[in-house]
Amino acid sequence: MKQTSVNRKIIRVDNGQAVEMDDRIVTEYPLTIKINGEEFVTMVCTPEYIEDMAVGYLASEGVIRRYNEIEDIWVQEDKGFIHIKTNNPNPLYQQFQNKRYVTSCCGMSRQGFVFVNDKRTAKIMKEKNVFLTPDECLRLMKDMQSQADMFKQTGGVHNAALCDKSGILLSRMDIGRHNALDKIYGYCLKNGIGMDGKIIAFSGRLSSEILLKVAKIGCEVVLSKSAPTELALEQAEELGITTVGFIRGNSMNIYTHPERIIREGN
Amino acid sequence: MKQTSVNRKIIRVDNGQAVEMDDRIVTEYPLTIKINGEEFVTMVCTPEYIEDMAVGYLASEGVIRRYNEIEDIWVQEDKGFIHIKTNNPNPLYQQFQNKRYVTSCCGMSRQGFVFVNDKRTAKIMKEKNVFLTPDECLRLMKDMQSQADMFKQTGGVHNAALCDKSGILLSRMDIGRHNALDKIYGYCLKNGIGMDGKIIAFSGRLSSEILLKVAKIGCEVVLSKSAPTELALEQAEELGITTVGFIRGNSMNIYTHPERIIREGN
Repeated sequence: MKQTSVNRKIIRVDNGQAVEMDDRIVTEYPLTIKINGEEFVTMVCTPEYIEDMAVGYLASEGVIRRYNEIEDIWVQEDKGFIHIKTNNPNPLYQQFQNKRYVTSCCGMSRQGFVFVNDKRTAKIMKEKNVFLTPDECLRLMKDMQSQADMFKQTGGVHNAALCDKSGILLSRMDIGRHNALDKIYGYCLKNGIGMDGKIIAFSGRLSSEILLKVAKIGCEVVLSKSAPTELALEQAEELGITTVGFIRGNSMNIYTHPERIIREGN
Repeated sequence: MKQTSVNRKIIRVDNGQAVEMDDRIVTEYPLTIKINGEEFVTMVCTPEYIEDMAVGYLASEGVIRRYNEIEDIWVQEDKGFIHIKTNNPNPLYQQFQNKRYVTSCCGMSRQGFVFVNDKRTAKIMKEKNVFLTPDECLRLMKDMQSQADMFKQTGGVHNAALCDKSGILLSRMDIGRHNALDKIYGYCLKNGIGMDGKIIAFSGRLSSEILLKVAKIGCEVVLSKSAPTELALEQAEELGITTVGFIRGNSMNIYTHPERIIREGN
């Protein structure tokens, strides 16, 4: 498989002085998913764990519902293809592919969903199995960052980690924001990992796209060092997900469903 | 038009102490472009300058080639639609929409293009009309950042600026990486602004998507405070674009076509 980063000669300018040196540059790998021989989507990604990523992506789009719906999966690296053979492509998927909600109100469903398929595949977190102290939030975010070696080397990737209260279970990185989450989702589906008590820690902004991925994976809590968007928070309210952002130094913001974060003075 | 950010109650936790307070949260607006009544694409964006954004997007996708190919453009804000009427949708566009290069080598054209339409619309910068000193690079990046008020308030947007040697001409922000560039591109097409001697300054990572947008807009130089990807640098080499990244403090990295950056000891 192609490398995730490569050496490259650059010119470093420091206080006006230029020197040529080697630098480590993150790669971008264009990958096309083919389902039963038909082109489905092309994405650019960091070329590792791409089978997991494809599985996670197809599940989050509602094309497959279980890992055992995949009969075969193989990568044609030189052409940039990943082939998926399934005897059960979800017929509802095609019906709703990229189909927008159009209502009398604002082009969205009442809960802030734009696409019909998102509404179908996002899970509502009614249970409350995870309770975290602020210190635990800080520690998980710190652990995720310290595992994120690639970012330190190249400054160019997003990191996501699947955690429970005890620490990080699985850490993935990608140049594409949602790819890191798809890699986690695909791994969990393949290995039958249950989502009870699980938490997602993420390096980037909590956009609606990321929030929906968290809901599709089925986690109750998402932690981030960055900011959320209003649409993501509306969805989090509806879906029952606890969002904690701006986790930096010794502080953080709790945006939605704060009942899962154990606070002094509560 | 919907606001670009809103107030929202959050719980701020600082050293274990929780207080409820108001925070400013960036909005995300789902917008569907309809061309001659047909749904074309749905994107999420920051809801300002959305007509410019739609024009820039369609031009960069090769659907239109000139602003005067648009007969009418209007926004249906409540439904999240922007309608474009054109009597001249580029027939080549449809033929190549999302069509991937498939070659014997690596699924890309020799120059690192993944999609046929990108190759058709990206311009090759043969001329060298822009020459910058490192100090000028630092100043333009600093000016862009100081104009980026929204980021300071909400921590959640990307900023792009069209510049020339004398300073910033136009500054746009968006929660979507490439939307900020589409807003600049659309404005320039509408107002007939020539690209000779122009520079793009960008807050985010230089991915292939961003590099291709710069080439489609027609700028010779792109400046960023973040890292590039290898694929973006391959494309920049081929397209003749000077890329300068990691512009921070008093230093920067020159990655491609360094002949436009005037350096001591050159």
